[in-house]
Amino acid sequence: MSLILRRFASTSILPPTIRQLLSPSHVVPPTPIEVNGWVKSIRRQKNVSFAVITDGSERKGLQTVFVHANESESGNLSLAKRLTNGACVRLSGQLCDSPGKGQVRELRVEAGDVLGECDPEEYPIQKQSLPVEYLRDKCHLRARTDHGAAMLRLRDRLAGQLHGFFKDQGFISTNTPILTSNDCEGAGETFRISSLSSPIPDPRLSEFFTQPSYLTVSSQLHLEALATSLSRVYTLSPCFRAEPSQTSRHLAEFWMLEAEWAFVDNVEGLCAFVEGSMKDILRSSFGPGADGGEDVEVLWKGGDEARRGALEEAGKEDKKWERMSYDEAIKELSKHNEQTSGRSFQFKPEWGKGLQSEHEKWLAEHLVKGPVFVTDYPASLKPFYMRSNSSSCSPHGPTVACFDLLVPHIGELAGGSLREERLTHLTAAIEKHGLKKEDYEWYLELRKFGGAPHGGFGLGFERLISWVGAIENVRECIAMPRWAGRMLL
Amino acid sequence: MSLILRRFASTSILPPTIRQLLSPSHVVPPTPIEVNGWVKSIRRQKNVSFAVITDGSERKGLQTVFVHANESESGNLSLAKRLTNGACVRLSGQLCDSPGKGQVRELRVEAGDVLGECDPEEYPIQKQSLPVEYLRDKCHLRARTDHGAAMLRLRDRLAGQLHGFFKDQGFISTNTPILTSNDCEGAGETFRISSLSSPIPDPRLSEFFTQPSYLTVSSQLHLEALATSLSRVYTLSPCFRAEPSQTSRHLAEFWMLEAEWAFVDNVEGLCAFVEGSMKDILRSSFGPGADGGEDVEVLWKGGDEARRGALEEAGKEDKKWERMSYDEAIKELSKHNEQTSGRSFQFKPEWGKGLQSEHEKWLAEHLVKGPVFVTDYPASLKPFYMRSNSSSCSPHGPTVACFDLLVPHIGELAGGSLREERLTHLTAAIEKHGLKKEDYEWYLELRKFGGAPHGGFGLGFERLISWVGAIENVRECIAMPRWAGRMLL
Repeated sequence: MSLILRRFASTSILPPTIRQLLSPSHVVPPTPIEVNGWVKSIRRQKNVSFAVITDGSERKGLQTVFVHANESESGNLSLAKRLTNGACVRLSGQLCDSPGKGQVRELRVEAGDVLGECDPEEYPIQKQSLPVEYLRDKCHLRARTDHGAAMLRLRDRLAGQLHGFFKDQGFISTNTPILTSNDCEGAGETFRISSLSSPIPDPRLSEFFTQPSYLTVSSQLHLEALATSLSRVYTLSPCFRAEPSQTSRHLAEFWMLEAEWAFVDNVEGLCAFVEGSMKDILRSSFGPGADGGEDVEVLWKGGDEARRGALEEAGKEDKKWERMSYDEAIKELSKHNEQTSGRSFQFKPEWGKGLQSEHEKWLAEHLVKGPVFVTDYPASLKPFYMRSNSSSCSPHGPTVACFDLLVPHIGELAGGSLREERLTHLTAAIEKHGLKKEDYEWYLELRKFGGAPHGGFGLGFERLISWVGAIENVRECIAMPRWAGRMLL
Repeated sequence: MSLILRRFASTSILPPTIRQLLSPSHVVPPTPIEVNGWVKSIRRQKNVSFAVITDGSERKGLQTVFVHANESESGNLSLAKRLTNGACVRLSGQLCDSPGKGQVRELRVEAGDVLGECDPEEYPIQKQSLPVEYLRDKCHLRARTDHGAAMLRLRDRLAGQLHGFFKDQGFISTNTPILTSNDCEGAGETFRISSLSSPIPDPRLSEFFTQPSYLTVSSQLHLEALATSLSRVYTLSPCFRAEPSQTSRHLAEFWMLEAEWAFVDNVEGLCAFVEGSMKDILRSSFGPGADGGEDVEVLWKGGDEARRGALEEAGKEDKKWERMSYDEAIKELSKHNEQTSGRSFQFKPEWGKGLQSEHEKWLAEHLVKGPVFVTDYPASLKPFYMRSNSSSCSPHGPTVACFDLLVPHIGELAGGSLREERLTHLTAAIEKHGLKKEDYEWYLELRKFGGAPHGGFGLGFERLISWVGAIENVRECIAMPRWAGRMLL
């Protein structure tokens, strides 16, 4: 398990957040402080009122106490009366140990003001649990719910955890182009761009870049170029797919973690690395010592104990994740299909065909009961750049040195491969896939001049959030989701 | 100055990089190790050959020594003969203290292989300094030059430094949409997208999202939505401008750091924060204690001592950066213009007109001789969302609570403002700017329900790289630049 020490704080320029005020290491000042935030809840009694104030920095908020037992405290009473859920307030008073249960510290309010009112009749964010669909329609306010805020903090924390992990492993974070002239997967489901400033918006007739340009579907080819110089590179970057799909696992705009490194020459090396990075994420989120358990708590809401235990278990150093070849996977799937007389799957498992979502889930959830790397898929199912295995690898046909990481409840979380570094093999693969060699001259040059064995992987960041946060749909794993037919704001 | 402690390393999954091998904290193993990389230079002598191997992890590379004094070492001789600049090699041998000058450790080669050859006649990356334009044409190989690799490592380090700074200040890193239905600046210079899967590529006739969609020019409006929940948010994200400009400061695709936070209610609060963040960057790069000076060294190549000294000076805690209002700036510019009988500037400085690049440079380079915040511009020059000052602020007309940060050699590095949080003021501003209120209903709701005083700024990441790295043109500040008419790869 990795030891984490936080970077020493820079000099604070802004006043402490509520998270900082509640931190055991925060020294409570003897003089009154000022706290800003939004009213999360309010409870009025005869002589005293309580309001929980949140600033989004942590999950619980700060309890504030308005004593109004006698006339000299009538200011507190009238202030407390003006508070409504969602109102923005600035309060000052003494921070002190709380005698009550449920919080360590509280603020004894001495003065304050409502900075922004919030009419409780009209406010779209009510205290009770709101339907997912309703909140999607209100996505500019969605971050104000406990779940929405916890998800955003989880994104922040996991992104930071990944940056730390890659740094420790000697990787350099890079930014690859979003606008590109090539289509990494050859899938055709890409967005095309045109310039508004051109009088004719038809992109066939006018090109800002003098050639057709698309939104990237993957940074991989560009990362490969950088890996032939910097050896180990990664990026956490937006990617786009113009798929009309309406599943719980697809977005038109999503963030992808992609890494590429030189001098790896076997699939096991790729799998071991991905396993290490994911275990680092799991250990930071589950079990004793997890420093990021707080938001996971909000998101799981108690939730499925067994499922959570399985994630804690999967994060353990000594628990090696399963590997199986595509050959073996098809064998297991076929066996199960026969045993259940074909009732288990809608699609019959067959060598040479892609694994369906139902197959992937069965492998991870039922057969392995945990994360599993499926390796060495048929070459015909995979893009041109994957490194071909020697033909002896499968009796059924040629395969490539690749893997998909399947996990319970999600299915495919990550996928990667060795890349074909042999110039003649790569040239042949480009031809075989019906691609134009002239479009890939630069890519071939990466091999021609000091080519290195290398490989990498991509991981959908929203799927990772979905996995760690037990969030049903990736539309709830990003602040402002976009999918076919839907783009608010 | 902020104290920085590195996060303790995760268990290493990959073998050490050359940076790690050369680190004083690396314990040299008694047994032979394997080193992978590319040949940076080679020097053959009668009994011994030397090759410097780089893996891009640091600037100098590792010296490797091939002893071939007698026949039993003929393997070393034939290996050394096969090495050419740019070739990819795997070498094994004993890492040990170097008796030579210029390096602390070296590798005594015992065995090895050329993994990828590189024909020196054909290799586009020659040892001598190559023209900038030539390297732009070869941008898939540009990272193999010392300058290209150092720039990419600088990007990595400064991004990490910014993430650390914002975390310390209680900010949450977020991802805002790239595809959007609104145009933050109302500038019209946006890229529009269409879906390839539609049979008709004319975006007027077919919309993937059922409405026109654009590439974002700024994350600000979206960040504002998140700041009303999380209080302090930022993003380092790609932005797009379909400007046909061909200057050294503009790209069609660039990365922008944008931050937004609640409860700031004066421009000085914004300026102080931006100054703090930039000083953190400067101190990490210049002067004693800078942990990132290595790549700065490569990029500056000795360079202008005075200019470098000025950056070190600007980073000092007690050196407060200048502030001046737009009013004052116009006064100073006009005075200088008169004193030089109008010969100084192509454009006459005049209240109500924007500051030209020549004006900005004069203010920072000649008048202030350092970074300067120019504040409170005329409302007519700025977007609708900036908070209006009371009319008494300038005798010439209404102004808004904003700033531009101007620095020598770059001009505008960052810009920001308080945002109008008063519902009636904001509604009036939307009308005044000729915008449709119905497009901004969600934005108005951020004020209607618990609106908070808030503000923020944006900073061009490539301009920051240009400033710190003394790189002339932003096209050399990103791996694969895009500008009007140019999009390789």
